[in-house]
Amino acid sequence: MSRSRKDWPRPLDFRDGRVDMTHGSGGRAMAQLIEELFLEAFDNQYLRSLNDQACLAVPPGRLAMATDAHVVSPLFFPGGDIGSLSVHGTINDVAMAGARPLYLSAAFVLEEGFPLADLRRIVQSMALAARQARVPIVTGDTKVVESGKGDGVFITTTGIGVIPEGVEISGDRARPGDRILVSGTLGKHGVAVMACREGLEFASHIRSDTAALHGLVAAMIDVAPGIHVLRDPTRGGLATTLNEIARASGVGMMIEEVRLPVSGEVAAACEFLGLDPLYVANEGKLACICAPRDAERVLAAMRAHSLGAKAALIGEVTEDPNCFVQMKTTLGGRRMVDWLSGEQLPRIC
Amino acid sequence: MSRSRKDWPRPLDFRDGRVDMTHGSGGRAMAQLIEELFLEAFDNQYLRSLNDQACLAVPPGRLAMATDAHVVSPLFFPGGDIGSLSVHGTINDVAMAGARPLYLSAAFVLEEGFPLADLRRIVQSMALAARQARVPIVTGDTKVVESGKGDGVFITTTGIGVIPEGVEISGDRARPGDRILVSGTLGKHGVAVMACREGLEFASHIRSDTAALHGLVAAMIDVAPGIHVLRDPTRGGLATTLNEIARASGVGMMIEEVRLPVSGEVAAACEFLGLDPLYVANEGKLACICAPRDAERVLAAMRAHSLGAKAALIGEVTEDPNCFVQMKTTLGGRRMVDWLSGEQLPRIC
Repeated sequence: MSRSRKDWPRPLDFRDGRVDMTHGSGGRAMAQLIEELFLEAFDNQYLRSLNDQACLAVPPGRLAMATDAHVVSPLFFPGGDIGSLSVHGTINDVAMAGARPLYLSAAFVLEEGFPLADLRRIVQSMALAARQARVPIVTGDTKVVESGKGDGVFITTTGIGVIPEGVEISGDRARPGDRILVSGTLGKHGVAVMACREGLEFASHIRSDTAALHGLVAAMIDVAPGIHVLRDPTRGGLATTLNEIARASGVGMMIEEVRLPVSGEVAAACEFLGLDPLYVANEGKLACICAPRDAERVLAAMRAHSLGAKAALIGEVTEDPNCFVQMKTTLGGRRMVDWLSGEQLPRIC
Repeated sequence: MSRSRKDWPRPLDFRDGRVDMTHGSGGRAMAQLIEELFLEAFDNQYLRSLNDQACLAVPPGRLAMATDAHVVSPLFFPGGDIGSLSVHGTINDVAMAGARPLYLSAAFVLEEGFPLADLRRIVQSMALAARQARVPIVTGDTKVVESGKGDGVFITTTGIGVIPEGVEISGDRARPGDRILVSGTLGKHGVAVMACREGLEFASHIRSDTAALHGLVAAMIDVAPGIHVLRDPTRGGLATTLNEIARASGVGMMIEEVRLPVSGEVAAACEFLGLDPLYVANEGKLACICAPRDAERVLAAMRAHSLGAKAALIGEVTEDPNCFVQMKTTLGGRRMVDWLSGEQLPRIC
């Protein structure tokens, strides 16, 4: 690329500048934004070619492909921001097929007037998350909408990854008798965002668990390539995820409240906010369903990984034509863990 | 999948219903929207698995990956809508690497209150475009933002495709002496959208050229696998595309105004709107740069294809350290075809 400097009379003003409509119109201003912000932060050979697509080497095998639109509000929250979230979220969706994530794309819808300083902070956070995960952002797009027609920034990321030979992980593979594991304490992401949104002082130290889980998944598959189901319980929390799996597999589930890992501070914040941690979003946790013979090995592998230190076996899959997810409560009773009908936490991711 | 009907007490109301926040919150309403709208329209084995990612068979070889956020306004315009556009746009970006597009993902950001009837019309239009192109939409995501924080619907699509052995197409491969071809008349998409937006009666019969170009590209590569550059001149039009290529390749270009294919009605509408067709977006056209020995063959292949009937050779690549794109005018003079500094057509795609 031999773009000459004279094209940009002044560098972008990342202190006081704001996004304007020209940044999305395909002309000089957009080229400058791409060069001085995105190329600078995401720097890699694919983006540097400045083509409208990336040309990628991919090892032979089946691919997993996942996409996520991120509209979290607020854009910055304790433990993360929309940038890191948009990298972790899609890496995790790819990893939940047992795949090794290879490449990400990123598409931005910016609102006119959004501060360039905030945009740079978000993009740098994405770049850091992608570097730490070793999954490059290889292609992208930027659009701008008029003030009042967006909300700062929305980021859609798409990821592809390669699925190791012999791995067959899918939501319809849970079987009666299978064990249900989770990789750590529940509800941190949702509570962190809600506490931030509501200005709750007492919960302001709760940080989102946003993290890329592909390393944890690789460690689990290493010891048990026959894992049946993996899923990250984001929107709708663990309750929704288990219901989705139960429905897809045509099975029931019985979990035990006493085994659910929930930190005291999240439990307290949930109590205050009127939330049930079972329904609150996580962004750095996974649920795993595997054959009984694999359960101990998988649990040990999870606990040996920094992102699975508090992993727990929480229940098992049952035979149930109604596909009910039920819970043995701490008081010794049973209750249904149903789908939520309505809204719990809007714009949580 | 054994989802039981009782989960949805009533089917979605596609006549009078509207998007509400529950459709994005991961609960029952979102599952119903996915099942009754997206699964129904995009119907394929990948989506039916209801996993958070698609598991895909991919032939060996290099992959092309492209992503595009679509924010076009209005959502419906003569000749297309945001749905068909979002399929064509990304297929074309993949195809411009010479790749055969294989799979698409789609992520929706919906505004609370958006009519479900309009959403269904858009989704059905996407489904039709994807079926006609034989590129399935294999995975997706849906988010909802509050009324006033979005603008009806934004759609980000991402595509992957496989690049045939021996094909090396990139914006930095233009060489002095190469020929510059375009596949048809310029400016139709941009003029159709602008005329619709401005309520111009006299131009209301001009239809967007939105189309998937991978078939045309395959026909061109068949006769000339050594094509140097392909690019679809969308935002910023042909002028911007040629400037991008000139800069990336470190060359100049000389095109001839008299050879530019522009229909009389688009020229008239541009005159009225104060637009230059060279800078107006196309969504079903491509620019091709190839060695002189390939030019006639490629041009013949383009003209033999329904989407390239009006293809033309419009100029050639020159040696120019300044990377200027210039044009011989119909009057016999020369003028610079520079980047636009500012905004021409906001939210055109």
